[in-house]
Amino acid sequence: MAILFNSPQDDAGEFEAWRKPLTAADPNIDLRFWPDVGRVEDIEYALVWLPEPGDMQRYPNLKVIFNLGAGVDKLLADKTLPYHIPIVRLVDPGLTSGMTEYVLLHTLRHHRGQHVLDQQQKDRVWRQKLFPLARNRKIGIMGLGVLGADAAAKLVALDFDVAGWSRRPKSLPGVTSYHGEDGLKAFLARTEILVCLLPLTAETRGILNAKLLAQLPRGACLINAARGGHLVDADLIAALDSGHIAHATLDVFHQEPLPADNPFWVHPKITVTPHVASLTQPETAIPVVFDGIRRHKAGLPIPNTVDLKKGY
Amino acid sequence: MAILFNSPQDDAGEFEAWRKPLTAADPNIDLRFWPDVGRVEDIEYALVWLPEPGDMQRYPNLKVIFNLGAGVDKLLADKTLPYHIPIVRLVDPGLTSGMTEYVLLHTLRHHRGQHVLDQQQKDRVWRQKLFPLARNRKIGIMGLGVLGADAAAKLVALDFDVAGWSRRPKSLPGVTSYHGEDGLKAFLARTEILVCLLPLTAETRGILNAKLLAQLPRGACLINAARGGHLVDADLIAALDSGHIAHATLDVFHQEPLPADNPFWVHPKITVTPHVASLTQPETAIPVVFDGIRRHKAGLPIPNTVDLKKGY
Repeated sequence: MAILFNSPQDDAGEFEAWRKPLTAADPNIDLRFWPDVGRVEDIEYALVWLPEPGDMQRYPNLKVIFNLGAGVDKLLADKTLPYHIPIVRLVDPGLTSGMTEYVLLHTLRHHRGQHVLDQQQKDRVWRQKLFPLARNRKIGIMGLGVLGADAAAKLVALDFDVAGWSRRPKSLPGVTSYHGEDGLKAFLARTEILVCLLPLTAETRGILNAKLLAQLPRGACLINAARGGHLVDADLIAALDSGHIAHATLDVFHQEPLPADNPFWVHPKITVTPHVASLTQPETAIPVVFDGIRRHKAGLPIPNTVDLKKGY
Repeated sequence: MAILFNSPQDDAGEFEAWRKPLTAADPNIDLRFWPDVGRVEDIEYALVWLPEPGDMQRYPNLKVIFNLGAGVDKLLADKTLPYHIPIVRLVDPGLTSGMTEYVLLHTLRHHRGQHVLDQQQKDRVWRQKLFPLARNRKIGIMGLGVLGADAAAKLVALDFDVAGWSRRPKSLPGVTSYHGEDGLKAFLARTEILVCLLPLTAETRGILNAKLLAQLPRGACLINAARGGHLVDADLIAALDSGHIAHATLDVFHQEPLPADNPFWVHPKITVTPHVASLTQPETAIPVVFDGIRRHKAGLPIPNTVDLKKGY
């Protein structure tokens, strides 16, 4: 049994970051780093992040594809994937806690007016402002999967007034839940800080548009840590320039890396981060991969196997 | 019974922010706003923040002084205070959660390299960097009172590796505790992000000095949300300029407001916030004050009464 590691965008340092702990976890591991895959018949499991389209059909004995990240939208765009085998979204604990850290950091930054304080420092202005108690601050999270649920729980622990919106009804302790088309309006009307953690599917593409942003209260903030495809860029710029949206923090973009001439870089009300909200961490991801392989060999289902009908 | 509200630095808006909820909580309240105190004999309880030195000795029937904040160092500098009555440090839940929010925000900002990302945005640079898992990030909190303990608990909940240092041994779930002069060296040697929440006393004045900073590992960050008097300003600048300390976030200063010519404002490795880490919030503070008055009338001790020997 050989395991393929296929992440063409990664540099040599990234390979090492995976090779060392994989070998430490199983000294007898037969690990093949793309493009040096050796005999294609040997490959039974693949760990991939944005592999070359068409590559996955080359391995006749491939049993499971592990996507080294929670989002499979780009992977599923490859119509030549072997769709008869399980495709697993890797939701490792490090990925989840990393996303929660990002959501907390940027929610707190908006909640506490830190963007204003940063500007005051530049202007050498000392001006105090009482911020609302967390319990009076309304956060709204779109997408209540593993990532959204964990971020929501940590925000609830800080006493924020947290609501969530998802496709189907969810029940999370301390979280007011809305769902479906009907629930969206009420969810948006109450949300001061909107966090998008949705999967990117045909239904959610372009969901962060002028119509949605207009339903948020004036002065609301947006955090998009899901996918660039959720956002209609021009609609956000218009909402920021009109003052309806106070600030946006964006980690994901239609094109990544974000081109140097993209207006987001220099917009005074936009914070750009380079898709770092949550990176799959070898230390926590590798045990999840090995557990998935064990489960597959034992004929058990693997958690977070993609439902092709839902698209995530 | 009349209650005096004495906070000379507050503007009219602040008075209103207190008057309304105080009156809502007790419509019969006899509230006197300094300097319009009326008959000094009427005053039995005082809510104060930085009152004029000497003012507190004017009220012959004063029974309790409530300090509208956790730090009493400035109040106790007034040697004419009626030291025979209880002086209470107001540790209201809003003050605690506000401080915890500040500590989380700025700890996460350091942990996730957000200062570097902010600079990258200015330079339109897209550069990803894997940050350590929270469990591999060592946070050290100096001062484990109500504020320090709450911040520590919330950091532990995010899986950070948290240690605390205090005068006397403390036992907090998930927190490695160090204490006294002997424990300081080991505490500092392990700490990557140092958070100062100490009370300002004769022993802690100037504790954040060259000797202490040198014991932190190279690249450590500092967050001071306690008092400006804890820090030796020139020692911090030297440690930042040598590269030993990577960044400092300061909310408190020897002189406040921070003078416009203070070098902290423009130092590229210093974040200045205008003493907003934690502001006493009327909504959560008023129930604590009323509870204190009830307890005093019933002859019960009032929580967080200042121990004059310790100075806090």
